[in-house]
Amino acid sequence: MSSCFNGGIDISIFGESHGKAIGVVIDNLPAGEEIDLSKIADFMKRRAPKKDGTSTTRNEKDIPEIMSGIYEGKTTGTPLCAVIFNSDQHSGDYGNISHIARPAHADYTGFLRYNGANDIRGGGHFSGRLTAPLCFAGAVCGQILERRGITTGAHIERIKDVCDEKFSPVNVTAEQLNKVKNGFPMLSADAEEKMREVINSARMAQDSVGGVVECAAVGFPAGVGSPMFDGLENVISQLVFSIPAVKGIEFGNGFSCADIFGSENNDVFFIKDGKILTKTNNHGGILGGISSGMPIIFRVALKPTPSISRPQKSVDFKEMKETELIIKGRHDPCVVPRAVPCVEAAMNIALLSALIDAGKI
Amino acid sequence: MSSCFNGGIDISIFGESHGKAIGVVIDNLPAGEEIDLSKIADFMKRRAPKKDGTSTTRNEKDIPEIMSGIYEGKTTGTPLCAVIFNSDQHSGDYGNISHIARPAHADYTGFLRYNGANDIRGGGHFSGRLTAPLCFAGAVCGQILERRGITTGAHIERIKDVCDEKFSPVNVTAEQLNKVKNGFPMLSADAEEKMREVINSARMAQDSVGGVVECAAVGFPAGVGSPMFDGLENVISQLVFSIPAVKGIEFGNGFSCADIFGSENNDVFFIKDGKILTKTNNHGGILGGISSGMPIIFRVALKPTPSISRPQKSVDFKEMKETELIIKGRHDPCVVPRAVPCVEAAMNIALLSALIDAGKI
Amino acid sequence: MSSCFNGGIDISIFGESHGKAIGVVIDNLPAGEEIDLSKIADFMKRRAPKKDGTSTTRNEKDIPEIMSGIYEGKTTGTPLCAVIFNSDQHSGDYGNISHIARPAHADYTGFLRYNGANDIRGGGHFSGRLTAPLCFAGAVCGQILERRGITTGAHIERIKDVCDEKFSPVNVTAEQLNKVKNGFPMLSADAEEKMREVINSARMAQDSVGGVVECAAVGFPAGVGSPMFDGLENVISQLVFSIPAVKGIEFGNGFSCADIFGSENNDVFFIKDGKILTKTNNHGGILGGISSGMPIIFRVALKPTPSISRPQKSVDFKEMKETELIIKGRHDPCVVPRAVPCVEAAMNIALLSALIDAGKI
Amino acid sequence: MSSCFNGGIDISIFGESHGKAIGVVIDNLPAGEEIDLSKIADFMKRRAPKKDGTSTTRNEKDIPEIMSGIYEGKTTGTPLCAVIFNSDQHSGDYGNISHIARPAHADYTGFLRYNGANDIRGGGHFSGRLTAPLCFAGAVCGQILERRGITTGAHIERIKDVCDEKFSPVNVTAEQLNKVKNGFPMLSADAEEKMREVINSARMAQDSVGGVVECAAVGFPAGVGSPMFDGLENVISQLVFSIPAVKGIEFGNGFSCADIFGSENNDVFFIKDGKILTKTNNHGGILGGISSGMPIIFRVALKPTPSISRPQKSVDFKEMKETELIIKGRHDPCVVPRAVPCVEAAMNIALLSALIDAGKI
Repeated sequence: MSSCFNGGIDISIFGESHGKAIGVVIDNLPAGEEIDLSKIADFMKRRAPKKDGTSTTRNEKDIPEIMSGIYEGKTTGTPLCAVIFNSDQHSGDYGNISHIARPAHADYTGFLRYNGANDIRGGGHFSGRLTAPLCFAGAVCGQILERRGITTGAHIERIKDVCDEKFSPVNVTAEQLNKVKNGFPMLSADAEEKMREVINSARMAQDSVGGVVECAAVGFPAGVGSPMFDGLENVISQLVFSIPAVKGIEFGNGFSCADIFGSENNDVFFIKDGKILTKTNNHGGILGGISSGMPIIFRVALKPTPSISRPQKSVDFKEMKETELIIKGRHDPCVVPRAVPCVEAAMNIALLSALIDAGKI
Repeated sequence: MSSCFNGGIDISIFGESHGKAIGVVIDNLPAGEEIDLSKIADFMKRRAPKKDGTSTTRNEKDIPEIMSGIYEGKTTGTPLCAVIFNSDQHSGDYGNISHIARPAHADYTGFLRYNGANDIRGGGHFSGRLTAPLCFAGAVCGQILERRGITTGAHIERIKDVCDEKFSPVNVTAEQLNKVKNGFPMLSADAEEKMREVINSARMAQDSVGGVVECAAVGFPAGVGSPMFDGLENVISQLVFSIPAVKGIEFGNGFSCADIFGSENNDVFFIKDGKILTKTNNHGGILGGISSGMPIIFRVALKPTPSISRPQKSVDFKEMKETELIIKGRHDPCVVPRAVPCVEAAMNIALLSALIDAGKI
Repeated sequence: MSSCFNGGIDISIFGESHGKAIGVVIDNLPAGEEIDLSKIADFMKRRAPKKDGTSTTRNEKDIPEIMSGIYEGKTTGTPLCAVIFNSDQHSGDYGNISHIARPAHADYTGFLRYNGANDIRGGGHFSGRLTAPLCFAGAVCGQILERRGITTGAHIERIKDVCDEKFSPVNVTAEQLNKVKNGFPMLSADAEEKMREVINSARMAQDSVGGVVECAAVGFPAGVGSPMFDGLENVISQLVFSIPAVKGIEFGNGFSCADIFGSENNDVFFIKDGKILTKTNNHGGILGGISSGMPIIFRVALKPTPSISRPQKSVDFKEMKETELIIKGRHDPCVVPRAVPCVEAAMNIALLSALIDAGKI
Repeated sequence: MSSCFNGGIDISIFGESHGKAIGVVIDNLPAGEEIDLSKIADFMKRRAPKKDGTSTTRNEKDIPEIMSGIYEGKTTGTPLCAVIFNSDQHSGDYGNISHIARPAHADYTGFLRYNGANDIRGGGHFSGRLTAPLCFAGAVCGQILERRGITTGAHIERIKDVCDEKFSPVNVTAEQLNKVKNGFPMLSADAEEKMREVINSARMAQDSVGGVVECAAVGFPAGVGSPMFDGLENVISQLVFSIPAVKGIEFGNGFSCADIFGSENNDVFFIKDGKILTKTNNHGGILGGISSGMPIIFRVALKPTPSISRPQKSVDFKEMKETELIIKGRHDPCVVPRAVPCVEAAMNIALLSALIDAGKI
């Protein structure tokens, strides 16, 4: 319910942006799995604000402290809890907007949902900060997947009108997926420069931009997942939409499947080295909710950061009157670079969960 | 798990395409709700094969028989079970392809998932026929929503390169949503003719086409839904991906949110007649997983029907050899028209479930 | 929720006593398991009314019809639905009591719960008839367990003051567990005669009696189950309390654990033939929610049948006035004999579910 | 799964006895509920070791630190996380027994379940310490219930052969339920002295004793709960069996229902002051899984503390050899007094969960 995901593993995420701490409990992890905390830190760092102008200048250390579930460097099999204490809050920044709805934020809907009792400071439980525990969980799952030869990765496919190359749906490799984890998460160095420009010029204009993240997994065994409500697409989607700015998701060739004929869209099966593969991968590695053995590929649309510093018209939903709003505080001109590991984390959780459901781990 | 959805209401769908029956159990429906079975039949008819060349010529009566949960025309509050007996199967049609993977179908992945024990006739549990009980459940939920002033509807937004008009994100009305339930589910009569042509020419070419369905709800109260994993987007997505051909979903302006600046994407709140509204509706009626009171709008991509009658290359996954495949049987050249009520059904289930979770029903 | 159990397998039970049908959907069963329908019928027969005066003379055929999930005699792995059509209802028998609360029945509480909309005929969804689909599900699970060397069984330990022998907590065997499945489910032939007398004299006195069922499993592997909320005791209890007349459950030495000292209650571990065993089995085969490899043993208390034919004082909860009640219809003077397979069924579901959760099946 | 309870509210408990911390996340609490932390502390104190010789001399401060979900003294409606940092561990005490199975403990079964990777120090996640976060959750729920006129309470009904008075099933009052929360949780001052003697003499004999806790709720509205798997008995049982030493549970007259005839067991309905009541309360306030408006009453059996300091025979399950075991450390000679608030906590969680499920909160 709400902030719990229940599958082969259970995830319970808690915390408010300006409360004491945020964190996560992960239940039903396999026991005896070595967890490298420095690699977890690396994963978290990919989500942390960049020092290069593309994101907020807020200083989020986000060091997860393990409360339980890891003993002598390995998972115990009982619930793993990690807590990230909040330190660098500037609650004062938000003082004047507590009942003025920030457009495209959940201030107004959250007020209704919780009868005005929710902690509104910094977005509270709706804050993008809550993706930090999601990343932690995803990083833990990722290490367990990696040990079984499964590699996942994600990159920025597009920011506004600047596009990166795409992963090859058929030939994407673990190396490529790992490579984009270093530095700005892109395949093409040329496009990177242009993207940074787009983001920076949005920042200069007190505005923001959105984009698309592409995520892939290789090495995932065929035959895992289920039909109907518990397929890989269903579960990945359920998890991905927990990332605040997500507006859409598509698997394989996604919405462009409508552009072609069935005879073009149908991926031809063939046999190579005793393995069944498909020549193209429009299906994105999933058929009937179940993995086909081809790379799993999907794309996620993220809206422009709602918090922009230029004055905006809005309403005070407590006083029920129209007013002007100026959002202070430090905000990302574009959430896409920081969303990349979040999307990957959601996928990691979904894939590990499905493997456990299938009794493969 | 698998074919169960668990939320404010629980749905358990069962059946195989060529088995004795398919059906659904719906648990936790509110008690005492009048259910008009003739309106249910109307809903089911929208999913039934059309007699106009756009779909299979198979004769699916699909009359759901109520086993429990309705007494003297009203829901009892205890589980409602409806069974649709299968009658018009031509199992022989599928005899020769039982171990040859039909491209873009779940034959191969299902074989792996169930160690070859699943009922493969007509796609078994993976068949599009399983959307009939989904529609039944959606039709029941729809009547309960309607009684509370909530109207949902869907239309074909696009088939290949032929587009219908779109719902107005701000001004779509219950009347419009109900109107598209009659006849071919489109807003524009002009586009209808072109769409039929596209479908028919695909059929003549032994090919198939896909498209996009747009779905909307009006009258849904603000403040319903939850953050993180149980938001309206998460739940709608989880349900929509149970429809076999779905490849993607987007809410509000969806993937095109990446084309514009934050200052354009942010929907401005204002007050009209004592109600808080937004001037635009890029957010699709959902903020932070919670309804805003604006129309809820999303679009779903559906791939071209995988079953085409022209010869295709494939593999026999039991014999592990490449072979040619000719799919016999009667198939839809385009699933989109019949998918329209399925998408609407998924939304109805999600919305009723969220209202019950919120204690509003 | 309500009539759904969600674990390693999912069970959704539907139906009302005098509606069209009752039944069950079982999801996530392992694929390819042979199911012997004649053995299922044998299991169901143990629950059917006896022709010997100990139960109702109502003629319940209770032949489950398989709708899905079994193909060529084996589980498909996709949801198994079985429907039992109701045939021998005498709804008229219940006409005069529809708003007079039958004592110890759920008429009044059900009326409140469902705002008077539930189907009250014959108890509706609260009827003991709903244990028929439970038995079906338990019979299916039992065959899958049996194939893995796990045998379960149950007998009447006590009816009023007449006691059967008990299973040996340490030495109970599969043979014993199977033997009590034939005829009156008791170990001691001597006690059987006395029990029948107790039941018959209750019947003659227009009264009823209750009792205790003892249930055991042997061959269940050690190390299966989980701490906290998902232990074997938790899950068995959750399932057993779905049987209408159950008032209590105890594992191992149960309530009598309070009679002895820790030094007596602690079961001493020892090694025999390379296996770890305990000398006594006060713990009932479960420690920390997890199986120890010793026989799993528990007992369940069942109240006297509430429906007795002598006049009773009660209230009409609609008219809100006190009145007298005469229950017509045919009722069991003692539900305990027929409850025996129901308790066993609940255990079978719990054990199979735990094995699947543990990835052992 | 495992350490998650999912109902109207979701509970996720984490931690190991000698790890960094234990704690709980509670999701879906109603928003805006005032939470008095000093009353929470009072509740926790009832579970803390007594200074009177009846429990361990270990110094457990057990002060829960709120990480999220409470803002300005009220619930925010988003997940409430409380962490209790472990401080007074004497891990060394356990050094020599890490692979010798302590009888009646989960050392051996936990080792099998987690392939030897679980944190075995002090029982790890199986420790009675994990009832501290359960009590925290129960204390929070209790305040929300109290505000709605619902009072719960529990007392020691029996320790070995010394019995307290029982709650009157019909006339138990909120005052009585609150009174037993102060001091030793008993109704009869006479019996208290004898009970302390039984416990102390067990302690002197390096032995331990068990007992029975009786728990009741008054003011709970009629008509809440559900049939089959989600009834009040099912949910209370599922929660109560999370308390390590519990061996059995019975509702109303429980196992003794088998001693009497149906005509005696059936509770007669009557009307008083416009309310429907029953003259007796053998049903324990629950019929068909749904509350009847009468006091809810159940009893729970707790085994003698397994940890006794006299030498015991056991096996080293890693070396697979028989050996002698001497348990060092400080242990309760009787867990029953400290289990009283734990049982009450489990009930509070179940009742609040059912009210939320019913849309009453």
